[in-house]
Amino acid sequence: MTGKLAVVGLGPGDARYLTPEAAAALASAEALYGYAPYLQRVPVRQNQIRHASDNREEGQRAGAALAHAATGVNVAVVSGGDPGVFAMAAAVCEQIESGPDAWRALDLAIVPGVTAVLAVAASVGAPVGHDFCALSLSDNLKPWELVERRLDAAAGAGFVIALYNPVSRARPWQLGAAFARLRRHLPGPTPVVFGRAVGRPDERVTVTILEAADTIAADMATLVIVGSCATRVIARPGRPPLVYTPRSAQSVHP
Amino acid sequence: MTGKLAVVGLGPGDARYLTPEAAAALASAEALYGYAPYLQRVPVRQNQIRHASDNREEGQRAGAALAHAATGVNVAVVSGGDPGVFAMAAAVCEQIESGPDAWRALDLAIVPGVTAVLAVAASVGAPVGHDFCALSLSDNLKPWELVERRLDAAAGAGFVIALYNPVSRARPWQLGAAFARLRRHLPGPTPVVFGRAVGRPDERVTVTILEAADTIAADMATLVIVGSCATRVIARPGRPPLVYTPRSAQSVHP
Repeated sequence: MTGKLAVVGLGPGDARYLTPEAAAALASAEALYGYAPYLQRVPVRQNQIRHASDNREEGQRAGAALAHAATGVNVAVVSGGDPGVFAMAAAVCEQIESGPDAWRALDLAIVPGVTAVLAVAASVGAPVGHDFCALSLSDNLKPWELVERRLDAAAGAGFVIALYNPVSRARPWQLGAAFARLRRHLPGPTPVVFGRAVGRPDERVTVTILEAADTIAADMATLVIVGSCATRVIARPGRPPLVYTPRSAQSVHP
Repeated sequence: MTGKLAVVGLGPGDARYLTPEAAAALASAEALYGYAPYLQRVPVRQNQIRHASDNREEGQRAGAALAHAATGVNVAVVSGGDPGVFAMAAAVCEQIESGPDAWRALDLAIVPGVTAVLAVAASVGAPVGHDFCALSLSDNLKPWELVERRLDAAAGAGFVIALYNPVSRARPWQLGAAFARLRRHLPGPTPVVFGRAVGRPDERVTVTILEAADTIAADMATLVIVGSCATRVIARPGRPPLVYTPRSAQSVHP
């Protein structure tokens, strides 16, 4: 009796981003596990058990879902965006590595989704149209010095930078510190995009520049994209500006 | 009379990855533009004109689609994966910036999709579960020295690295040169994933290590993920191994 565990990416929020593969995995699951606000996005089905848990309980949630699946049940763990990007897929793998042999025998499926940087980028044009990196600003699981080293490396080499987890109640200063660090490498007029709740009814997208970025509010639902010095803004009469990074590059600092 | 242009991400290939938003944009378009193999993935509809073009004609294709939309037509440009990642969205923005004013007045929608790194990562576990970057190995549009500088920066700072466009008929040596460069920074046993045509019938996923990576064939349909020194492989009896990068990190080189 082998159980099944699917780790399912819901995309940015609205059902128009949910892939058919993800919808099918959710529909066939006998039990759902997830952070409560993500579970709320999944339509309720009869005879499907739900286990909502709090943020920052990813390890426990993954372990509980694996243990449940190992009893022969078809279980799904839900993630916002894509499960492989700062989300539940790595937490599940961590638990499998340290858990009982039976967990390695499970039928495991990771179901990809549209991760936040893609949705925010699409909402303004093509800011990650050239080489880019995705970096979590949370220093819960890594030292801040490592975040700074990565900001230096990425900005210094001309990558566009997507900042996941820019701010939380417990981490109020990290985003400002990151902008200050990036100003060592990038000119003040470098475009910066704040995408809050993109793909949901309370979506708010703001385009600003690095030297003014501190004045824009961000929260846990925000993803921030900091351009490279090649990133451009196109004004459009009667429409919001487009932000994009050209496909070609001559050098890091042209 | 304002036309509409949608730049639509088809995802990795199979219809199970096509979002409802992308499906709706394709269904409502009066004309489709795209690289011929991508257009072939879209079901044929009556009264919908198709303009297939060759690879490396992105600028011309974008301009033709914009000019067509500006006549008041609902036009869609298709991209594999996500249009914002090394694909058509940046090409369209480039044309808008240098084109006539009417193109800035168009109703432009970028429809995100599951980009290759997410699909390949999902097929093996969670290799991009921690900070990562996406880098095109094509030196058609940037000097190779810049590629090397970015490889140095990313590997030196502990990013997992997703290599888009690793090989083509005209660019046979770049992937081997990239592996050689990365060996300066990363130990030989660093996990490397080759994902070819993931999400399509001819999918082939290979897990290897950096010191053996040259011996594996890659082509234009391949995405390569090079782990960081934190990336781990979990053997599973009777199943392919899992590859993942833990969510926590202590330093760049533990």
